[in-house]
Amino acid sequence: MTRKRQLKLGFMLHGVGMGWGDWRHPDSEPTASTSFAYYKQQAQIAEAAKFDFLFVADSVFITEKSSPHYLNRFEPLTILSALAGATSHIGLVGTLTVSYSEPFNVARQFASLDHISGGRAGWNVVTSWLEGSAANYSKQSHLAHDVRYNLAGEYLDVVQGLWDSWEDDALIHDKASGVFFDPKKLHTLNHKGEFFHVKGPLNIARSPQGQPVIFQAGASEDGRNYAAQRADAIFVHHDSLDEGKAYYRDLKQRAAGFGRDPDELFILPGIRPVIGSTEEEVERKYQEFANLTSIENALSMLGRPFNDYDFLQHDLDAPFPDIAAHGANSNQSQSNRILDAARKNNLTLRQVALRFATPRTDFIGTPEQVADAFERWLVERGSDGFVVNVSLPREFEVVAETVIPILQKRGVFREEYESETFRGNLGIPVPRNRYAAGDVSVAAE
Amino acid sequence: MTRKRQLKLGFMLHGVGMGWGDWRHPDSEPTASTSFAYYKQQAQIAEAAKFDFLFVADSVFITEKSSPHYLNRFEPLTILSALAGATSHIGLVGTLTVSYSEPFNVARQFASLDHISGGRAGWNVVTSWLEGSAANYSKQSHLAHDVRYNLAGEYLDVVQGLWDSWEDDALIHDKASGVFFDPKKLHTLNHKGEFFHVKGPLNIARSPQGQPVIFQAGASEDGRNYAAQRADAIFVHHDSLDEGKAYYRDLKQRAAGFGRDPDELFILPGIRPVIGSTEEEVERKYQEFANLTSIENALSMLGRPFNDYDFLQHDLDAPFPDIAAHGANSNQSQSNRILDAARKNNLTLRQVALRFATPRTDFIGTPEQVADAFERWLVERGSDGFVVNVSLPREFEVVAETVIPILQKRGVFREEYESETFRGNLGIPVPRNRYAAGDVSVAAE
Repeated sequence: MTRKRQLKLGFMLHGVGMGWGDWRHPDSEPTASTSFAYYKQQAQIAEAAKFDFLFVADSVFITEKSSPHYLNRFEPLTILSALAGATSHIGLVGTLTVSYSEPFNVARQFASLDHISGGRAGWNVVTSWLEGSAANYSKQSHLAHDVRYNLAGEYLDVVQGLWDSWEDDALIHDKASGVFFDPKKLHTLNHKGEFFHVKGPLNIARSPQGQPVIFQAGASEDGRNYAAQRADAIFVHHDSLDEGKAYYRDLKQRAAGFGRDPDELFILPGIRPVIGSTEEEVERKYQEFANLTSIENALSMLGRPFNDYDFLQHDLDAPFPDIAAHGANSNQSQSNRILDAARKNNLTLRQVALRFATPRTDFIGTPEQVADAFERWLVERGSDGFVVNVSLPREFEVVAETVIPILQKRGVFREEYESETFRGNLGIPVPRNRYAAGDVSVAAE
Repeated sequence: MTRKRQLKLGFMLHGVGMGWGDWRHPDSEPTASTSFAYYKQQAQIAEAAKFDFLFVADSVFITEKSSPHYLNRFEPLTILSALAGATSHIGLVGTLTVSYSEPFNVARQFASLDHISGGRAGWNVVTSWLEGSAANYSKQSHLAHDVRYNLAGEYLDVVQGLWDSWEDDALIHDKASGVFFDPKKLHTLNHKGEFFHVKGPLNIARSPQGQPVIFQAGASEDGRNYAAQRADAIFVHHDSLDEGKAYYRDLKQRAAGFGRDPDELFILPGIRPVIGSTEEEVERKYQEFANLTSIENALSMLGRPFNDYDFLQHDLDAPFPDIAAHGANSNQSQSNRILDAARKNNLTLRQVALRFATPRTDFIGTPEQVADAFERWLVERGSDGFVVNVSLPREFEVVAETVIPILQKRGVFREEYESETFRGNLGIPVPRNRYAAGDVSVAAE
């Protein structure tokens, strides 16, 4: 790259906050999760601060034990489409599971969002990991972890294949001759695989980005390979910069191993900043935040990645329990990460629960301290940027108003958007249509 | 009703027009089908004219023989969500097939649209009738007509059940006590039927309309009963006022037979007006329109409801061919309507093709003449209103500017919206949540 390497930043859009008790903060708007006005305001703050993208998480199964932000939330494609009309430059990334959806419908909806937004759509490809999800989709059981990744690979093949149904110049619109399109540039996919038979073509023209941006969250061995091979960006969670650096090295090497330019794969950990103008204000705000979550709530949150395992039955101050012996199911990256951290650090159940419920400390401090942490992770290659996820009300305004200007002054974050498309702002090319004829000079790369 | 009965009007949003050659008109924008700016402008014209709703049609299968408006179009839920942010009072009705989607996802997306729009979502429930559709969804074959209606009934049971997951007052948000919701007012559906097993609950609160408005297009015996029992509005096609009156009588009687108030079922035929300030201008515009469609294109359009049957093989000026003898499949309402019309009126193939490709004449004329037709259909109970579908560019502006003011002056169409919700403007109540406790005084009805 000729230009100085800069941070790529996303903002996690949600209503009541992702902790159990965030909605109880005196300043919180407890109805924010289904307030379009609130989402629009947050999106416009992120765009004014030149963030690369908005990120909407998702899940497809709740019980009465689920935490508030799971219980009541917008569906990602609909809220992102609504926000497309209220913004002009920021990327729009939505989470959608491949486990319980049809690739033809998903390809259409993201292509449609990409057209509506003028080239700003992104898809966070996930496989559903909660056992209960199957029960909302007329399925007897949930697929095993390795099968889910085989399915996810084939699913993405189908969706990306459908996105190439129409070559960029397939639509001719010649009123005089009456030729609407060139049939040689419309392609039928005819996919016949292990999990899917999808004929195509897609009934929407190739979208401004050619292929919407792909996000993934690979932590397991299968997940890392999938992400390194297929993703444009990885949304991940780390407990320390060292952990981040090891993951970063590993994923960039894997990407290179798959023949990719590692600079075109962005590794973006989620962070939860808490910012104060003085150390005293930081401490006060952090305590405010920590007090929102009771130990009971922290235990319930901890239980979710273990299929709502009931941790209340164990001694809080004894070493983290051997829950496998109690029949708890744990076959995915989040639960494994928790078990690893508990084992390595000899943590008690209480310590694990609080660690899981409260943010990591690198991003808690004064604006200068937090900007330092942003820059350190970038320079030391712990990440290429972050997905900023705030829990306190109005904390995102604080990030936008205090941390971002410091990063801009230091030249590690943009002052103006480079492009009107998400790919353009990430600095990655529009992929060449797989069917396009050989003339390299016309290719987008 | 205490107030004078008034028209309920929808506007069919599309880009290049639904005829084969509409895009060739000198004034047409051939890229309109994926232009958000164009859709937004049309939507705002409809809202300024106080239309009840926007209507987006859909299909999930194309071949290179499909007509231009099928080939390239927005997906309905995404474009309607984007338009929700650009409008404030008009209903947003999207077509979505029950044949190739999951009820949990569909319930979520429409509930989410209803929240985003402040209570303006509508779902046009369709079963897919094109054989080819199955090939885009990993299915070997398409369901038979009667099975499709059984499935559609159960599907709607599931979706409407999920929409009642949360009672209206289930979310409490008591910051002091930490109670986010009342678990007694969150309901798990536990649906176990012939086609679907869906546990629930839905992960989004009950939406402003309680239940988004249901559209249907029932023409067959099964379809009529389904619509009369379940729909709030019916989108239908008629060739004459007499046909409209017979259908109207039949459907209102069926609705009463199901114990419903027939005034709460709106019958809304699709019409394609062509308007000129003089009879000469009308004739010129009509010819302009007719000339856009060649007889070859008209035959291709005619072939679509018969699974792309090739009518070119038949003599244009002989009586309409006995295509069943040629193996053409016809098991749905649109193809049956065409066959009936051909048989009853002894039409040639050319006559059938042109009749199918060009609009009916009741709604072609000067603004006064067309307003007369609108009023006649309302007063003589041929319909409760219309879905206006224009083919000529800028023709909708003409309808809005010339016909609507006449209807308003005559008192048969609103001058201001009565409500900010779609149900409110239709004058139909928010359905009581099926789980709500007995106190009738709190019901929305």
